[in-house]
Amino acid sequence: MNLFSSDYCEGAHPRIMEALARTNFEQTEGYEEDPYCDNARALIRKAIDCPACDIYFLSGGTQTNMTFIAHALKPWQAVIAAETGHICTHETGAIEATGHKIIAMPAEDGKLTPQLIQAAVDAHTDHHMVAPKMVYLSDSTEIGTIYTKAELSAIRRVCDRNSLYLYMDGARLASALTAPGNDLSLTDFPELCDAFYIGGTKCGALFGEALVLVNPALAEDFNFTLKQRGGLFAKGRILGIQFGELFKDNLYLELGAHANALAARLKSAFEDKGFPFLVDSPSNQIFPILPNELITALREKTAFRDQEVIDEGHTAVRFVTSWAMTDAMVDAFIEDLNRLCHE
Amino acid sequence: MNLFSSDYCEGAHPRIMEALARTNFEQTEGYEEDPYCDNARALIRKAIDCPACDIYFLSGGTQTNMTFIAHALKPWQAVIAAETGHICTHETGAIEATGHKIIAMPAEDGKLTPQLIQAAVDAHTDHHMVAPKMVYLSDSTEIGTIYTKAELSAIRRVCDRNSLYLYMDGARLASALTAPGNDLSLTDFPELCDAFYIGGTKCGALFGEALVLVNPALAEDFNFTLKQRGGLFAKGRILGIQFGELFKDNLYLELGAHANALAARLKSAFEDKGFPFLVDSPSNQIFPILPNELITALREKTAFRDQEVIDEGHTAVRFVTSWAMTDAMVDAFIEDLNRLCHE
Amino acid sequence: MNLFSSDYCEGAHPRIMEALARTNFEQTEGYEEDPYCDNARALIRKAIDCPACDIYFLSGGTQTNMTFIAHALKPWQAVIAAETGHICTHETGAIEATGHKIIAMPAEDGKLTPQLIQAAVDAHTDHHMVAPKMVYLSDSTEIGTIYTKAELSAIRRVCDRNSLYLYMDGARLASALTAPGNDLSLTDFPELCDAFYIGGTKCGALFGEALVLVNPALAEDFNFTLKQRGGLFAKGRILGIQFGELFKDNLYLELGAHANALAARLKSAFEDKGFPFLVDSPSNQIFPILPNELITALREKTAFRDQEVIDEGHTAVRFVTSWAMTDAMVDAFIEDLNRLCHE
Amino acid sequence: MNLFSSDYCEGAHPRIMEALARTNFEQTEGYEEDPYCDNARALIRKAIDCPACDIYFLSGGTQTNMTFIAHALKPWQAVIAAETGHICTHETGAIEATGHKIIAMPAEDGKLTPQLIQAAVDAHTDHHMVAPKMVYLSDSTEIGTIYTKAELSAIRRVCDRNSLYLYMDGARLASALTAPGNDLSLTDFPELCDAFYIGGTKCGALFGEALVLVNPALAEDFNFTLKQRGGLFAKGRILGIQFGELFKDNLYLELGAHANALAARLKSAFEDKGFPFLVDSPSNQIFPILPNELITALREKTAFRDQEVIDEGHTAVRFVTSWAMTDAMVDAFIEDLNRLCHE
Repeated sequence: MNLFSSDYCEGAHPRIMEALARTNFEQTEGYEEDPYCDNARALIRKAIDCPACDIYFLSGGTQTNMTFIAHALKPWQAVIAAETGHICTHETGAIEATGHKIIAMPAEDGKLTPQLIQAAVDAHTDHHMVAPKMVYLSDSTEIGTIYTKAELSAIRRVCDRNSLYLYMDGARLASALTAPGNDLSLTDFPELCDAFYIGGTKCGALFGEALVLVNPALAEDFNFTLKQRGGLFAKGRILGIQFGELFKDNLYLELGAHANALAARLKSAFEDKGFPFLVDSPSNQIFPILPNELITALREKTAFRDQEVIDEGHTAVRFVTSWAMTDAMVDAFIEDLNRLCHE
Repeated sequence: MNLFSSDYCEGAHPRIMEALARTNFEQTEGYEEDPYCDNARALIRKAIDCPACDIYFLSGGTQTNMTFIAHALKPWQAVIAAETGHICTHETGAIEATGHKIIAMPAEDGKLTPQLIQAAVDAHTDHHMVAPKMVYLSDSTEIGTIYTKAELSAIRRVCDRNSLYLYMDGARLASALTAPGNDLSLTDFPELCDAFYIGGTKCGALFGEALVLVNPALAEDFNFTLKQRGGLFAKGRILGIQFGELFKDNLYLELGAHANALAARLKSAFEDKGFPFLVDSPSNQIFPILPNELITALREKTAFRDQEVIDEGHTAVRFVTSWAMTDAMVDAFIEDLNRLCHE
Repeated sequence: MNLFSSDYCEGAHPRIMEALARTNFEQTEGYEEDPYCDNARALIRKAIDCPACDIYFLSGGTQTNMTFIAHALKPWQAVIAAETGHICTHETGAIEATGHKIIAMPAEDGKLTPQLIQAAVDAHTDHHMVAPKMVYLSDSTEIGTIYTKAELSAIRRVCDRNSLYLYMDGARLASALTAPGNDLSLTDFPELCDAFYIGGTKCGALFGEALVLVNPALAEDFNFTLKQRGGLFAKGRILGIQFGELFKDNLYLELGAHANALAARLKSAFEDKGFPFLVDSPSNQIFPILPNELITALREKTAFRDQEVIDEGHTAVRFVTSWAMTDAMVDAFIEDLNRLCHE
Repeated sequence: MNLFSSDYCEGAHPRIMEALARTNFEQTEGYEEDPYCDNARALIRKAIDCPACDIYFLSGGTQTNMTFIAHALKPWQAVIAAETGHICTHETGAIEATGHKIIAMPAEDGKLTPQLIQAAVDAHTDHHMVAPKMVYLSDSTEIGTIYTKAELSAIRRVCDRNSLYLYMDGARLASALTAPGNDLSLTDFPELCDAFYIGGTKCGALFGEALVLVNPALAEDFNFTLKQRGGLFAKGRILGIQFGELFKDNLYLELGAHANALAARLKSAFEDKGFPFLVDSPSNQIFPILPNELITALREKTAFRDQEVIDEGHTAVRFVTSWAMTDAMVDAFIEDLNRLCHE
């Protein structure tokens, strides 16, 4: 069975495995206060061209979002997100569990716009309502779309006008930054965001996200929140070692590009058969709309998830590719698809 | 510099590193729904002789304590702990951050007793106070002491009389179960506790704790809380692989015994010099009381932590040994100690 | 200046003021453990024909909603509400501050339906999402509409099919139950709801809501939550005395009918001039759509609130009537309206 | 049966009842935005000589403490209190339910000292522990003792040295400020505290506490928290009217002095019989230690509460006097005491 069900079906990039093995018996102090974390921070600061930012490593995306948002917001403040945003849909109310309302906006293609953000702000007029204070974006989004530099800059401006923090969930940042149509680079995020995270779990690491705190006001005392929310890793160096490998050269983005290339091949294969898509996504997630019988038949050899029921006979499904998947996997799938479509 | 500052200064046992490398490119579904987690659960269930328990894997101790306690207690219920307990002292208020009061009792040698528990219960008489509902223990405790079977059984009885859950923090369970004077075994915990966790981070794993939910009422819907609190691991199989190695034979307890043996050698060395101890601890943490000048001199070659100021000239310090430390490290330290004491 | 801005612009019904004065120097024990609270509970139990229910008195609506919902739900459970529901819009995120997500559904005329509830349930499929567990309704709704017995019964059935609690916010229950088109009576709520509250603040009391806990599972230990959330009143008898007056005869419903009658007169006046309404509401809140110049002119003598901008020249506004307003106030307003419309 | 069980056994001062009746049918806007609240704020600002402070009215003490502390502290910050403090003992974990740890210190006579506060601060050294940020005091304390100006000033200095907020729970402030030995006045509190509340419930009001926010940083956005925590009163003017009466002349302190005088008479009566006291309290709560048979006999005519078991035959009990109790009540009690002691 080949799995296109997610981009966390495999382990870590071999260089990471080697680095972990090589350093295994070295002794270091815990809690991210070790030379490997320091090295990874230095490499990331250089890659994003932000020497003054604070960087913390956390084990997963929900934990990172929950910990950061709980840290940044006062109890009566809320975060604005697309209603398809990960914090709205697939984190079991983690943000609300820390006491904060999410103002969920209906966003076409999973992307917030200045208009949507301003509308959310304008709807909150006094102290009988929560106070919007943060914008949460994902790049790439949960449905595979990406932001352009113009779009992100416009969102930054609407945030400035309304004193909102801008926070970017970069679980799939490597894929976004290497997707066709992308004109953002790693150095743009510290300029445009108050904070963002660089996702490792979905791009080459065993696990781990690097949270970059650009706005110094949000960095203050973050280590308290990190510990309080269960996110401070005892053997922190394991995270440092992993991000040290991903950022000591261009490996991180190369892995994103690899996943995108495989997704593009899958996309072409579906296009060749004339299947439409739920959304036109350039990154490592694609959402073809397929006949239900075909879906059933494909699942004999391949795993992938349902996204949305379209009509009685058709469902939009999700294929996700990863840094670790191979052209051979894609070849085998396309062969299967061709076979089933010709029967 | 040799580090006796904690038992999480190194990576993982070589068998774990090999297993991770061997399985690295296999594809599995995420979120602990994979064959490696299933295998680890089966091995643990066998080792503890509790076929019906539920087992979840989390990445660290604070996260495990916080997630479980938040799951088990209703908002007005409180947990009773020794005032030296980890949840009282070194979790940055993680339990309170989930809304629950800890009733901290002054406990000699870090150990709760039936009397202390009953006193905590008796002090809470009506709905103007929190309702005690859980007892939190650690074995070994934060100051290296251990519970006997008679002590733990007596605590179980006082819990039963007062309808309290009994929860055991097993961050250092391997050390406890292989310490001189211990008469508890892994199979006793499901009989005596409603829930407990088997610590991997401090015994052979890169990271990871196995939370065992014995009481079915506490297992219901636990996966919701696990996700909500940021504890559900995307590549869950990494945790399954690690616990699979630790429990496929007696490795887990062997590693605990190794750490204890090294600690016993350190303890003898201090005893030989006539130094007293803050507490008589049989496990992998020892707390000698040393002259401050000696402490300063020892720290030129060795790292260890202060525990408590005794008087102007003396401090109790903490030495911790791990599964990964060697007799050679201990030899070198003892040589240094001998040299400094003879000057 | 006459105020139609809310139904809490005045004090309490004279009978309540007299009862408070009459009993002022009697000594009673505090915290709702006094004969006046017992008497009020007995009268309410009789009025709703539910001898076994538990009843608590709280000082306001937000506090009642927040306290009850925090008590009833487990941390990962969510409440379904109309997106116009008070808990969604005007409680400053009080529900989220207790850790719970509100699943807000777009509901025509402010009323949930079985279809909307089932859709909310169906969208939550596993432990990566919150678990819907309660339905929150208001009767009358925040935009003045009311539920019929058939509608409420159908909602009860969809709750039963999905193991959902049904909770009714009765801030304006007196108005709902005496509105044209209503076929519900006080005795229907214990049969159809797990819990509901009878609003006193907006109907005759200085302040106070009577929370009726019908489902025994939700009543257990409620006094702990009540105290913990700041809702347990020291001089509880003040609440008991007030509800004792409201329910010793038909006063409560008479006051609701009075408010409705005044609102109906206002409504007719606007209808006579041909103004449309945002919603066709039969209770004590009406929402005419008026030209902005007329609104400005009317506000020289009368206070009322904006509800929603309709277009550049028109705004829907809200007029609320209370048990304490008089026909003379309405006469004066209608005269002013006539005058301004004829100019 | 005469009740000395609390100082909230009666209604309100007749002047308050008259003012409520007199204004009953006036219309005002809600939520403390009315002329009566404005007037009460002006009177209190004058009485405490603090023209710039913000003042909010809440319905009870637990709600005031919980709302203010939740507003002032960041999630990882804690409040230091005497272990007999109301927030530690009789608020059902309300502070912890908002996420904050209370650092409870063993305080002689219920009073914190600079030494205790500094010890609490010194015990918290890094981000693995909560960060102490506030000191909570009560004056008078829960066991009737009071602070001197020198004591409170010394506590202010230790707060300044450690960047701690100082918050005073004034549930029984009127009694404290009119007790023998007191040298504090209302004007001292704005100089020494960041915030404090003036208790109305236990001194003349039907209910209500006036929270004074002196430190502007703690006043910012407080109205959001007030609403979110259920503390914003719809008919806010009821609170304004009450505090307007209490502060339009010296009534508030006169009522405190009355309660103290009655307590002093009770105290003398017990002293005359040679009974010792648990604590030497000069205010409206006294704690004689009595033989258990005498306690039983006294309770046939008088209600009062147990405070603490002293030995098998003796119990410390609590007598509380109020602004509304009479010399005749005290006479009757003393007569009963004399009779029982002579039998």
